[in-house]
Amino acid sequence: MASRPTIADIARELQISKAAVSYALNGQPGVGEQTRQRVLDVARDLGWQPSASARALGGFHTKVIGLALARPVQTVAIESFFIRFLVGVETALTKRDWSLLLRIIGDHPDQEVEVYRKWWGEGRIDGVILVDERHRDPRIAAVDAIGLPAVLCGGPRRDTSMPCLWTDQAADAATLVEYLAGLGHRRIAHIAGPAEFAHERSRQRGMQRAAARCDVQLLSMAVAYDAASAVAATHSVMSDPTTAPTAIVYANDVNAVAGERALDGSGFSVPQDVSVISWDDSPLTEMVATPITALARETEAYGEQAATVLLDRIAGVDHGRVRVTPSRMVIRESTGPARSRR
Amino acid sequence: MASRPTIADIARELQISKAAVSYALNGQPGVGEQTRQRVLDVARDLGWQPSASARALGGFHTKVIGLALARPVQTVAIESFFIRFLVGVETALTKRDWSLLLRIIGDHPDQEVEVYRKWWGEGRIDGVILVDERHRDPRIAAVDAIGLPAVLCGGPRRDTSMPCLWTDQAADAATLVEYLAGLGHRRIAHIAGPAEFAHERSRQRGMQRAAARCDVQLLSMAVAYDAASAVAATHSVMSDPTTAPTAIVYANDVNAVAGERALDGSGFSVPQDVSVISWDDSPLTEMVATPITALARETEAYGEQAATVLLDRIAGVDHGRVRVTPSRMVIRESTGPARSRR
Repeated sequence: MASRPTIADIARELQISKAAVSYALNGQPGVGEQTRQRVLDVARDLGWQPSASARALGGFHTKVIGLALARPVQTVAIESFFIRFLVGVETALTKRDWSLLLRIIGDHPDQEVEVYRKWWGEGRIDGVILVDERHRDPRIAAVDAIGLPAVLCGGPRRDTSMPCLWTDQAADAATLVEYLAGLGHRRIAHIAGPAEFAHERSRQRGMQRAAARCDVQLLSMAVAYDAASAVAATHSVMSDPTTAPTAIVYANDVNAVAGERALDGSGFSVPQDVSVISWDDSPLTEMVATPITALARETEAYGEQAATVLLDRIAGVDHGRVRVTPSRMVIRESTGPARSRR
Repeated sequence: MASRPTIADIARELQISKAAVSYALNGQPGVGEQTRQRVLDVARDLGWQPSASARALGGFHTKVIGLALARPVQTVAIESFFIRFLVGVETALTKRDWSLLLRIIGDHPDQEVEVYRKWWGEGRIDGVILVDERHRDPRIAAVDAIGLPAVLCGGPRRDTSMPCLWTDQAADAATLVEYLAGLGHRRIAHIAGPAEFAHERSRQRGMQRAAARCDVQLLSMAVAYDAASAVAATHSVMSDPTTAPTAIVYANDVNAVAGERALDGSGFSVPQDVSVISWDDSPLTEMVATPITALARETEAYGEQAATVLLDRIAGVDHGRVRVTPSRMVIRESTGPARSRR
């Protein structure tokens, strides 16, 4: 087994000093043209490549960006959002021959900045992608303070000048509510995700405004992104027949699929008794017994755009506030006309 | 915005030379004890950390392992195997404060070794995890040849001494066939994944032996890991009622879910007409109309074990051939007694 070829190997091969090899490889004076050519030939023959460490010390880019994901491990493994986002990020990186340093740190958002500070301090990365924006999000000031280039998947925010990819959650909410109102629904439940996330707050606000505009009664609850929480919330909103909604909007695919099964298990037909919508599309929503209408985002494209905005920022080009392509409704069998009541 | 503190910042703060700061930080002679103490104090105040680049040049570990995944991007995004494996890898890395350099390169397995050669040549990684073992797998000799520490998720193989995590596919096949034979099934179809993958070949061989032993007729086909291929294969094996199987074993969760829907759409009841089994468990198999019996692997634990074996190998401890925990049957509603014919 050979080990990685070094400048010392080239020097030994040519019986010259390591300094002379280094001069030759770096195009510096101090070595004759003939020697330089022999060094370059041997370097190629041995498969020598400039070390990332040496280049980083010289002030060049590491060509690596970082992503630390602070989510419960089980959620990461079930939801399709993150892996699709990651595939998009990788698409952008591969085009420019950059790599991704990844850390999945579980449900400890406070450790995320520590990981970034360490990676940046140690010269391992040139920038980071911030996902899962929180309402109060200490990462943003911290990352700005250490001068680490970043792109925020979220915003726009007044407390930072970092470029961001923002989603018009109010427009998406209006799309959902108008579609349901058009089917005659006058009482809708929104089983949202945790209110600590900025996008969930924006969605709740957007739903409230759209409901008021469309003369629809809105029931809102915030629950965790897991099947059990969605089932409990579903039973709760359906428990009183006099106030039960005729349509339920769930925060994501996992919650919608679990909620639909809970409805089925309680004797409610979908969509005859209750329409069901997921605020995220995935293979899950298609594969269930009654395929679920969803607000679909272009998640791979979103990841690719995030990485591109970050790479440009590192190169000195700031895209500022970029609006993400609006989501679109994918109509399936889980939605239909509202059941008329009495 | 501050930038990463450097030796130059410490030197400026103390009005001494950068060389003196470097001597002090590296515990070398050439600087008095009092100055050394002042340097260390200022370094701590500024949040200075030794650069990874500098340490790597000094021969220390990068504390990074690499993983390049050469799979069609769509498969990565749908199947739950990879993300669960990744979560396990991250668990092991986080415990020892290592990181993962990730590249998703799409359906170009030939580029995988190039990525590894580059990362290793540039001093970015200390080792790699090889997944998706192929029958003929040029990666193994290539990685051995460049001296890059690796762990193989697969094997055991005679053509390498790298540590491996091998799965007893024959034992898993026997578990499946014996279970179905016990329910009276005498004609089973195995809709396997592509034969280029070593584990699919091992499974096919295992199924054939177990079928012979249990006096079961086996129909084998190899198809791609996607829903459309599984649907086509399902229609094909069910097309002739005189030879149609009473049970179908699919290669993974995506294929099993698509296959079950195809059966349903063609008027076959599951499990009354046909039993369905998935050779991989996931949330998908649980969430469909008729939840699917599956051979479940501990995928997170597998990823964690792979990373641990690699980190130990880098540290000089070779675990050799490690047998992965056997899979277990998770019985759900998609399997039942064989329907008697005629």
